[in-house]
Amino acid sequence: MLVKSYELRIDISVGVDIKDITPLVRQLVSESRIRNGIISINVVGSTGSITTIEYEPGVIEDLKRAINRLAPPDEEYMHELAWHDGNGHSHVQAAILGPSQSFSIRDGEIVLGTWQQIVTINHDVRAKTRRIAVSIIGE
Amino acid sequence: MLVKSYELRIDISVGVDIKDITPLVRQLVSESRIRNGIISINVVGSTGSITTIEYEPGVIEDLKRAINRLAPPDEEYMHELAWHDGNGHSHVQAAILGPSQSFSIRDGEIVLGTWQQIVTINHDVRAKTRRIAVSIIGE
Amino acid sequence: MLVKSYELRIDISVGVDIKDITPLVRQLVSESRIRNGIISINVVGSTGSITTIEYEPGVIEDLKRAINRLAPPDEEYMHELAWHDGNGHSHVQAAILGPSQSFSIRDGEIVLGTWQQIVTINHDVRAKTRRIAVSIIGE
Repeated sequence: MLVKSYELRIDISVGVDIKDITPLVRQLVSESRIRNGIISINVVGSTGSITTIEYEPGVIEDLKRAINRLAPPDEEYMHELAWHDGNGHSHVQAAILGPSQSFSIRDGEIVLGTWQQIVTINHDVRAKTRRIAVSIIGE
Repeated sequence: MLVKSYELRIDISVGVDIKDITPLVRQLVSESRIRNGIISINVVGSTGSITTIEYEPGVIEDLKRAINRLAPPDEEYMHELAWHDGNGHSHVQAAILGPSQSFSIRDGEIVLGTWQQIVTINHDVRAKTRRIAVSIIGE
Repeated sequence: MLVKSYELRIDISVGVDIKDITPLVRQLVSESRIRNGIISINVVGSTGSITTIEYEPGVIEDLKRAINRLAPPDEEYMHELAWHDGNGHSHVQAAILGPSQSFSIRDGEIVLGTWQQIVTINHDVRAKTRRIAVSIIGE
């Protein structure tokens, strides 16, 4: 049984921006030489999230619109009273989407659908180099 | 320390449909003979999700209604421009709910509440035989 | 390779209430003596959830408001027909937020941002002593 820990650094634009990290994650799975196990992926920072979607430009725009309805950027947020940094909606959106996902590794591959990509979302009003923690346990 | 990998295949109706997979997951935990550890459950495909809820017909209808507010089926979606398959809302709903959950295994049982069931949700406009990847690591 | 299982018990008020459990979780990571691995955290019960957010009073209020828009307490819920316990919205909110998160442990620390706290949310109409299952696997 092995444990392997990695960190990705993803340049991502002003939110809502959505990036496909599947090729990078697959590369880590390959590097780990773990054939069967669990991979945990969590974003570092409270204005980012991790989920899966078909990485197709139309539906990516559809998802951005739905996220901006969960916590609209143009509403008033009490977070502003503390920080005045204009990203109250970013924190709320990220907390609802969630910071982590876990997946099975089987026969050396993450078990995903053909049109299912792992994405990280930047909800913040600033571009980021987002850190993403990846750990793989198995054999 | 052991790692065990499984796949469930769940017949599920046109979305939003919600199925209780707890008995099947418990059976896998029992089969694995792992007494203490972590179980990771992820749906395969970008129009499904995994969460927990009390599996009671009333609240299942309540959840369906709330999910259809996150991304209403009768709105226009840019996903249609690429695929014309009528399931733009399905992808958006599934991405917000999320593809995976993880739970503790203790003394050979998943640590859940009495009225807390693990469910998979089909958000798609077509019935599916949905694959669900389950991995258990522990001893 | 080690596996360690724990349970937190968190006193939490009538929902939506949000509690920072990061210090307690960090203490478990320290106790486990696991330096590299995965931690899985799941709430026990179908009216609670786990996520991360900057634990700052303003944005906590902002998150409560957004959660109460996902499933407003003052709507009618079919869950009432079965149970008459006034918490239909609680179940729906909790199912959308999700019961679990997983994180990397690296060099004996959970990999989180400086302003990113792990929180449990009570969506229920009653105060609770909420059980939270925590398992850590690694070496």
